[in-house]
Amino acid sequence: MIDFMSVIKERRSATKFIQDVEISQQELDDMFSLTKFAPSAFNLQHAHYLAVTDPARKEEIYEAANKQYKVKTASATILVLGDTKAYQQVGRLNEGLLNLGVLNRQEYDITVESTIQFYEKRGEIFQREEAIRNASLSAMQFMLIAKAKGWDTCPMIGFDPEAIRSLFNIPEQYIPVLLITLGKEDISSQRPRGYRKPISEFVTYNSF
Amino acid sequence: MIDFMSVIKERRSATKFIQDVEISQQELDDMFSLTKFAPSAFNLQHAHYLAVTDPARKEEIYEAANKQYKVKTASATILVLGDTKAYQQVGRLNEGLLNLGVLNRQEYDITVESTIQFYEKRGEIFQREEAIRNASLSAMQFMLIAKAKGWDTCPMIGFDPEAIRSLFNIPEQYIPVLLITLGKEDISSQRPRGYRKPISEFVTYNSF
Repeated sequence: MIDFMSVIKERRSATKFIQDVEISQQELDDMFSLTKFAPSAFNLQHAHYLAVTDPARKEEIYEAANKQYKVKTASATILVLGDTKAYQQVGRLNEGLLNLGVLNRQEYDITVESTIQFYEKRGEIFQREEAIRNASLSAMQFMLIAKAKGWDTCPMIGFDPEAIRSLFNIPEQYIPVLLITLGKEDISSQRPRGYRKPISEFVTYNSF
Repeated sequence: MIDFMSVIKERRSATKFIQDVEISQQELDDMFSLTKFAPSAFNLQHAHYLAVTDPARKEEIYEAANKQYKVKTASATILVLGDTKAYQQVGRLNEGLLNLGVLNRQEYDITVESTIQFYEKRGEIFQREEAIRNASLSAMQFMLIAKAKGWDTCPMIGFDPEAIRSLFNIPEQYIPVLLITLGKEDISSQRPRGYRKPISEFVTYNSF
């Protein structure tokens, strides 16, 4: 049993990883099998993960990520993508509920039509922002799960998204949202945790 | 002790809340005091929470949120905002590390200058997307903490952001990222959990 509050308090962004620690695909799959329960708008599951453990490919990401050393030494470097066209999957994703009888045919049709309209009416900027928003919700869940399983992570935004897109032939509909380095933190030169604002500075009650 | 994996597995988006359940500001503050440990780019803490427990104000949000009933019946309706100008706080947020001697004056100056440059060079769309990304990371942490403390939540995107902005006099630099309804779920008519894609559909290893 792993204490929830300890995971929340002990997860910190790792600045340095112990080199040559390998992680198996099975271990990563175990994390993703829990990550999938993160919520998403209309349950469209906009998040897609590209997990890179191959050293040569990690080296390429390192070059596209301002040569940040932790990309190289991480056990896995994980690109979190957001699907701007996730809403087009609404029919397929709800077929199960239709088949189970949770949704009748009319409810299913309304769900499909209204979801597609919602995204098409709000346009491409909204579709892109939805990809970022929902992939980020998923990414936070992933980082906490990784910590609960004994791994440290660092979310990163300092990379060239178009270079990454080209390196991995990422289809146009997916956008790079975050890079997460994952490994075992080298705590020999750990800095104190970054300052956090007091609640009164980031929480307002009832009016601004 | 609350089991981490149970929180992850049991958190579900609530579709219906038990009416007239009150939540105190102290309980919400307890959640925010843990939410603040969520990571953010350059530790800029872009997330700002507007927590609404006042029934009259909840009624106004209900009108701006397509009259979704759960907004009214939730114990609190929480607007998650993202600060597009969070990077301008980099000096203030790092003063503690400077005073502690973790950063020397030169490192502090470089941190401040490079962070401001990073955001100004990438421009307004990036600043907006960063607000969405970092507020979403924080929001997921908040929803898990709420579950661990016995509350249910539902993240929502179906609202008119400009109507909300005007209702609460939200300054231009903050953007509405998500609405989270929080309460005790009425499970008497709970639907089965939404279908989730198998791992092979949302995780790719080493290349696309």
